[in-house]
Amino acid sequence: MSEASTATGSAATGSAVTLSRAAILAVGSELLMPSRIDTNSLFITEQLNRLGIEVVYKTIVGDDRDELAQALVLARTRTDLVVCSGGLGPTDDDVTREVVAALLGRPLREDPALTVHLLERFAARKLPYAMPETNRRQAMVPDGADVIANPFGSAPGLWIPDGSRVVLLLPGPPRELKPMLTALLDSHLRGRSPGHAVVRRVLRIVGRIESQVDEVLHPLYEVWARQTPPVAATILATLGQIELHVSTRAGSAAEAERVLDEAVDQAVAVLGDDVFSIDGRTLEAVVGAALAERGLTIALAESCTGGLVTSRITDVAGSSRYLQQAVVVYANAAKTALLGVGEELLTRHGAVSEPVASAMAHGMRERAGADIGVGITGIAGPGGGSEEKPVGTVVVAVAVRGGAGRVQRYRFFGERERVKFQASQAALDMVRRTVWEIPVPPRSG
Amino acid sequence: MSEASTATGSAATGSAVTLSRAAILAVGSELLMPSRIDTNSLFITEQLNRLGIEVVYKTIVGDDRDELAQALVLARTRTDLVVCSGGLGPTDDDVTREVVAALLGRPLREDPALTVHLLERFAARKLPYAMPETNRRQAMVPDGADVIANPFGSAPGLWIPDGSRVVLLLPGPPRELKPMLTALLDSHLRGRSPGHAVVRRVLRIVGRIESQVDEVLHPLYEVWARQTPPVAATILATLGQIELHVSTRAGSAAEAERVLDEAVDQAVAVLGDDVFSIDGRTLEAVVGAALAERGLTIALAESCTGGLVTSRITDVAGSSRYLQQAVVVYANAAKTALLGVGEELLTRHGAVSEPVASAMAHGMRERAGADIGVGITGIAGPGGGSEEKPVGTVVVAVAVRGGAGRVQRYRFFGERERVKFQASQAALDMVRRTVWEIPVPPRSG
Repeated sequence: MSEASTATGSAATGSAVTLSRAAILAVGSELLMPSRIDTNSLFITEQLNRLGIEVVYKTIVGDDRDELAQALVLARTRTDLVVCSGGLGPTDDDVTREVVAALLGRPLREDPALTVHLLERFAARKLPYAMPETNRRQAMVPDGADVIANPFGSAPGLWIPDGSRVVLLLPGPPRELKPMLTALLDSHLRGRSPGHAVVRRVLRIVGRIESQVDEVLHPLYEVWARQTPPVAATILATLGQIELHVSTRAGSAAEAERVLDEAVDQAVAVLGDDVFSIDGRTLEAVVGAALAERGLTIALAESCTGGLVTSRITDVAGSSRYLQQAVVVYANAAKTALLGVGEELLTRHGAVSEPVASAMAHGMRERAGADIGVGITGIAGPGGGSEEKPVGTVVVAVAVRGGAGRVQRYRFFGERERVKFQASQAALDMVRRTVWEIPVPPRSG
Repeated sequence: MSEASTATGSAATGSAVTLSRAAILAVGSELLMPSRIDTNSLFITEQLNRLGIEVVYKTIVGDDRDELAQALVLARTRTDLVVCSGGLGPTDDDVTREVVAALLGRPLREDPALTVHLLERFAARKLPYAMPETNRRQAMVPDGADVIANPFGSAPGLWIPDGSRVVLLLPGPPRELKPMLTALLDSHLRGRSPGHAVVRRVLRIVGRIESQVDEVLHPLYEVWARQTPPVAATILATLGQIELHVSTRAGSAAEAERVLDEAVDQAVAVLGDDVFSIDGRTLEAVVGAALAERGLTIALAESCTGGLVTSRITDVAGSSRYLQQAVVVYANAAKTALLGVGEELLTRHGAVSEPVASAMAHGMRERAGADIGVGITGIAGPGGGSEEKPVGTVVVAVAVRGGAGRVQRYRFFGERERVKFQASQAALDMVRRTVWEIPVPPRSG
């Protein structure tokens, strides 16, 4: 971004420092509120661990010069690498840049290239006023620091050599921080890392509960713990799915990857089709890929999920190729008018029933001319429950062109949004299992 | 639990110490993994804030004697109250009790009443072996500490007076920690709290950028900082909205609320209708309430947002009263068939255009028989952009029964999911502004 400061930085970072112990400092008063949590540190930890750099501790401080300075003083005595996130914005309470520069004894100078960049960014937004003067703070660079370009925001990162240590400043917004840290791995970090790689994989599982996954994997845990290098495993239950995290530390990333390939194969052999992803993909991405590679289209009729399943499907790039159409209908009259659900079916079985879900799925599929139809009906709460059909009762049906389809009743617990999410997860999973049964056509040519 | 230690403790805690600044230390190597997060601190912060005790910083350390000791040394110099969670289990890597006792110079003594309690708990599990000797560590109590009963686990809490300070040790599992801290509020904390309540409010704002909100509020910040009690303000930019957090500390919660009422009024006077919520409500909740109190219904036709707007509307309990119906349509043919959008309109202006968005909104409103109709068309990306209509171009139209309606073109930046969310925020905000212009009918009776 700034040629002058990059040149200074390259010289400063050329020394053969090895960084093996890191501290993460998250800066921002909002992160000390009872409703906020620092999640950047998870991404930072994962990336540093991959290079064999251990995260020794994490601290969260407010926008407070004194507290930040004290935290930095301790971090410099305990670690080689201090990664600070946040507090680089344009306002008065963004203090990270100034506190760090003062503590390291590095005067701040305005970088003209950065100022130009800031003015250009601001002009591109075509706002009806000039850039506030305070925004220029984001062009201030401590002596000897490398400027790290921020493609998605105005606050540049700063890599500040500090004797045998490094202090790295990154902006707080995750979408700015993540690509910047990713770029730094190759440009600044890999060459200074200890050379032992910790590698992790995440398997995502639906259709089982945590303790059951734990039980069936127990024999594998024992094998993994005794082998060289050992594989560590952790199970994490999140809403509507279970995650199995496996990790190992080896002499090289390639060796670690090979060890984990084998562990993942072993886990999948035990868990079967309940594993929907071994590469971090979401359920909607897996469903989208399954539809796309078979050239199938889908249409959805949602009641209690209120458009959430369709919205998740359309979170995936290219989903317009397979998403034909969707409707959100609550009222029985609309189910009849838009989907052709028979009135006597609604009267006899009630809107939340297997026959109605199936009729919604078939009606939607036929009217949209799609290959797959989905019907979802249920009671998201908090009102509308009965003894026979309590809040959280959801029925999902999947219809297939020329096939039998599926229908399944579920009972979910929790508040409205949690019921909606679990129902969307169940619907996507039923589509996945249905589509996975259909052979992938051979590619022509 | 142990009468002897409770008696000791009562004497020790009888002194008139006031605790106003707290640090939270979460102990556990698993909390430094890239998949885990400390959430106990949110609950602890909420409870302490209610008593007027400020959380100055939070630190997460592994099961490491050295790091924990260093963190404690710093915490003792910066705060009056150090709350440690975790590391009180029976195994070798549970080090909190020993490290704290050593640092405070308090010898650990086995509490016979606790040992009996541990043996009883163990016996109740009817395991085929005797309690491991290591479990006795959980009966060790530092000199002068109060034992805090743990109704849901084996690790007791420890309230350790430390000169004018206090170090409080609580077990890590949330279901053990929460009831123990709740009990401590009355037994140990309320009497030592500053008697000042910290109260917070969150104003949510759309239609302005962070630095502009900051600039127009600047005169207020100066007034707030100088008044008694002062009001602190923080601006937080989140996707599609700005949050202004104001907080104050006063002699009573009622006084704090009164001070904040006034501050909120002052901010709203400056920001006007761009403030959509002063009570923590989401935009979809505000839109829902506005529709409900006017007895209006809504129907939506979504293209690039793929059902997200409807899903957000249905996140609100009771939304079935006003959400009439929604469709998600990508293809032009479906826009014509389902919404009556004229083919020549699509050909002449393109699908992403003001006339098409308006036709979608009107067509949807009429076909559903709703009071409000919404049409959203745009390019969520990553493909589909052109020079004239780049990725992120979104047009939103709102139609009103018997009214003029609105149509607006936007340009959003970022990845697909971010464009979708910002577009959903813009659409909900246009609905809010449209509905707020309609008078609320007087209540009958």
